[in-house]
Amino acid sequence: MTTRTETMDPSGEMRTVEIVFPTDTNSMGTLFGGRALSLMDRLAFIIASRFARKPVVTVSSDKVEFRAPVKVGYLIELVGRIGKVGRTSITVEIDMYAEDLLSGDRTLCTTGRFVLVAVGDDGRPTPVGEGSG
Amino acid sequence: MTTRTETMDPSGEMRTVEIVFPTDTNSMGTLFGGRALSLMDRLAFIIASRFARKPVVTVSSDKVEFRAPVKVGYLIELVGRIGKVGRTSITVEIDMYAEDLLSGDRTLCTTGRFVLVAVGDDGRPTPVGEGSG
Amino acid sequence: MTTRTETMDPSGEMRTVEIVFPTDTNSMGTLFGGRALSLMDRLAFIIASRFARKPVVTVSSDKVEFRAPVKVGYLIELVGRIGKVGRTSITVEIDMYAEDLLSGDRTLCTTGRFVLVAVGDDGRPTPVGEGSG
Amino acid sequence: MTTRTETMDPSGEMRTVEIVFPTDTNSMGTLFGGRALSLMDRLAFIIASRFARKPVVTVSSDKVEFRAPVKVGYLIELVGRIGKVGRTSITVEIDMYAEDLLSGDRTLCTTGRFVLVAVGDDGRPTPVGEGSG
Amino acid sequence: MTTRTETMDPSGEMRTVEIVFPTDTNSMGTLFGGRALSLMDRLAFIIASRFARKPVVTVSSDKVEFRAPVKVGYLIELVGRIGKVGRTSITVEIDMYAEDLLSGDRTLCTTGRFVLVAVGDDGRPTPVGEGSG
Amino acid sequence: MTTRTETMDPSGEMRTVEIVFPTDTNSMGTLFGGRALSLMDRLAFIIASRFARKPVVTVSSDKVEFRAPVKVGYLIELVGRIGKVGRTSITVEIDMYAEDLLSGDRTLCTTGRFVLVAVGDDGRPTPVGEGSG
Repeated sequence: MTTRTETMDPSGEMRTVEIVFPTDTNSMGTLFGGRALSLMDRLAFIIASRFARKPVVTVSSDKVEFRAPVKVGYLIELVGRIGKVGRTSITVEIDMYAEDLLSGDRTLCTTGRFVLVAVGDDGRPTPVGEGSG
Repeated sequence: MTTRTETMDPSGEMRTVEIVFPTDTNSMGTLFGGRALSLMDRLAFIIASRFARKPVVTVSSDKVEFRAPVKVGYLIELVGRIGKVGRTSITVEIDMYAEDLLSGDRTLCTTGRFVLVAVGDDGRPTPVGEGSG
Repeated sequence: MTTRTETMDPSGEMRTVEIVFPTDTNSMGTLFGGRALSLMDRLAFIIASRFARKPVVTVSSDKVEFRAPVKVGYLIELVGRIGKVGRTSITVEIDMYAEDLLSGDRTLCTTGRFVLVAVGDDGRPTPVGEGSG
Repeated sequence: MTTRTETMDPSGEMRTVEIVFPTDTNSMGTLFGGRALSLMDRLAFIIASRFARKPVVTVSSDKVEFRAPVKVGYLIELVGRIGKVGRTSITVEIDMYAEDLLSGDRTLCTTGRFVLVAVGDDGRPTPVGEGSG
Repeated sequence: MTTRTETMDPSGEMRTVEIVFPTDTNSMGTLFGGRALSLMDRLAFIIASRFARKPVVTVSSDKVEFRAPVKVGYLIELVGRIGKVGRTSITVEIDMYAEDLLSGDRTLCTTGRFVLVAVGDDGRPTPVGEGSG
Repeated sequence: MTTRTETMDPSGEMRTVEIVFPTDTNSMGTLFGGRALSLMDRLAFIIASRFARKPVVTVSSDKVEFRAPVKVGYLIELVGRIGKVGRTSITVEIDMYAEDLLSGDRTLCTTGRFVLVAVGDDGRPTPVGEGSG
């Protein structure tokens, strides 16, 4: 009942889905930028945690452009993957798609990049990756 | 920038991830059964909506057994797929895994099956699948 | 100011009420199945905790059928009671009613049954009921 | 399956229960006054709506005293009933009890009184009660 | 990077802003009284904590009148200040304004007064103010 | 009771305060980057809405660096102001401070810059500022 092998998507990606609810929107009735940033960072956190198998914290987010508004009732799918890995830092790249659940039309809304660092028991950066254990 | 092809996982599955927060727990400090049921139904809703490309509603959930408690800070990954498809109904099967983000230990916590029906503008069941359009 | 006697409803039932908000709904604008399951399990948890006066966890939910959609702004009232009691397990039966607050029309939407077990300090099942203390 | 008769508690009271979660607490780890006020007003709203069978809004809350702190994991039970009824206004009285789910110890934490008015389609006060229909 | 001086508004006031979302509203589509009470108490808590630099708890709220309904999408700004200070208690006065973000029209919706007491490690009231340290 | 003049802070800034709750934190027990981004964008939205007095949407966020972790129970104060104003775009600059409510120690945690555009009824960018009305 316990295994370490089933967790991986064949593509090395992790995905998560949400539906846009009214509370996620601005006064235009479209997805709040801040809500999108929050979902992206949360997935970056999960992906970096899984890669490092150590506690991680976000140290920066790169410039994020919001290309298209997303309506209430739309599906948001976030697809993330590990980018560059430094001695103590992990870059996670996230694409966010919006999908009209009724028509299936799907748009890449935004792409973001988050940098996280692994932290030790003392709260200071600690090495990640192959030789770090 | 718009495409209908990138949305599918090669395995025909959809996945979503969450982290167990304190508000998701009972007085034992472990994941509330109701929270798990809610996450499972939400994914079932997304999968059935995507399959039918019509509005859907949940009509029943099958017996669900919770095999193991899930702690705060654990990752929960839900993996869902289409099961049996009837004339107006869609069965979605969901497996929920808990994963210790630090160790990578992963457990199948529960398996659920939800039945949803596609509904037309009149709120009544409407056919799904190939010949339904 | 402290008493153990006022908590009981004369009928041996416990009730709780909620109003359906937009965030509780699916794309049909009606109550999400998962939200209903979550509310039912939460009340089951309270009732079983009160009966056992020990920490409890949900181990299973029985098949749940959703008979009628519930609209935004409707009242949901859950009425729960203790069903069968085993050595370490407690079955709680929950009826969920929807009520149009303006007309007073009231419908039994669904009935559910949840099994919970009392757990000791070691996280393992522990006896409930008269002779268990 | 539809009935107007089962909704009433024999005592003419309505009850609702919640469990205190960490997000409901202040830095002392006890229930936030504002959260308690919010729960009380919500029940007042339901009770007044049910009584008037018209839309209602809160116009005032009386002085509320918080007699005792409530800890995380405690049950909160709110018991409300109709007080004085004016031509367009309804006073709802709410008692809030905290209960240690493990010991059963139960305390009256606070008592509140909320005044609501029924409003018509024009948003202005409208009569409630027997002769108002 | 650390300073104690920038925190104060020249007027000795603290402000906080929120936007009214659908979940914050009653069936009239206007701000729930309970939500307003909750926001007011939260700001009172912050202001009293900052003044006392000790843990504080709310002991009472005075009568609160809701003068005007607030619509979805409106800005709510709360402005709070220290009122009367007793040996162990702090009164915080809060004004809540609603503002139509598009027109700039702004209304004082309600005024409230909350009394909080500082509490020591033993959970009992402890002196606040100049000579209390 | 209605005025357009009281809303402004003498400094031309807007402020908002929150307390870090457990649900806002990562597995290190410190504020989630995504939660901080969300709060910053929300304030940017309010400030730009107020400046333009038209509906606005976020089109990008600049690189954001998180300089210091913020603990549960800390106050977060966001201070925002209008930066560069283009024909249809508004840049809002946000500083986020964390403050230990008990000691008063206060740290600038991060600084962000968000670009929003005013949008017309057709959902397309529309001029802001003096000559736009």
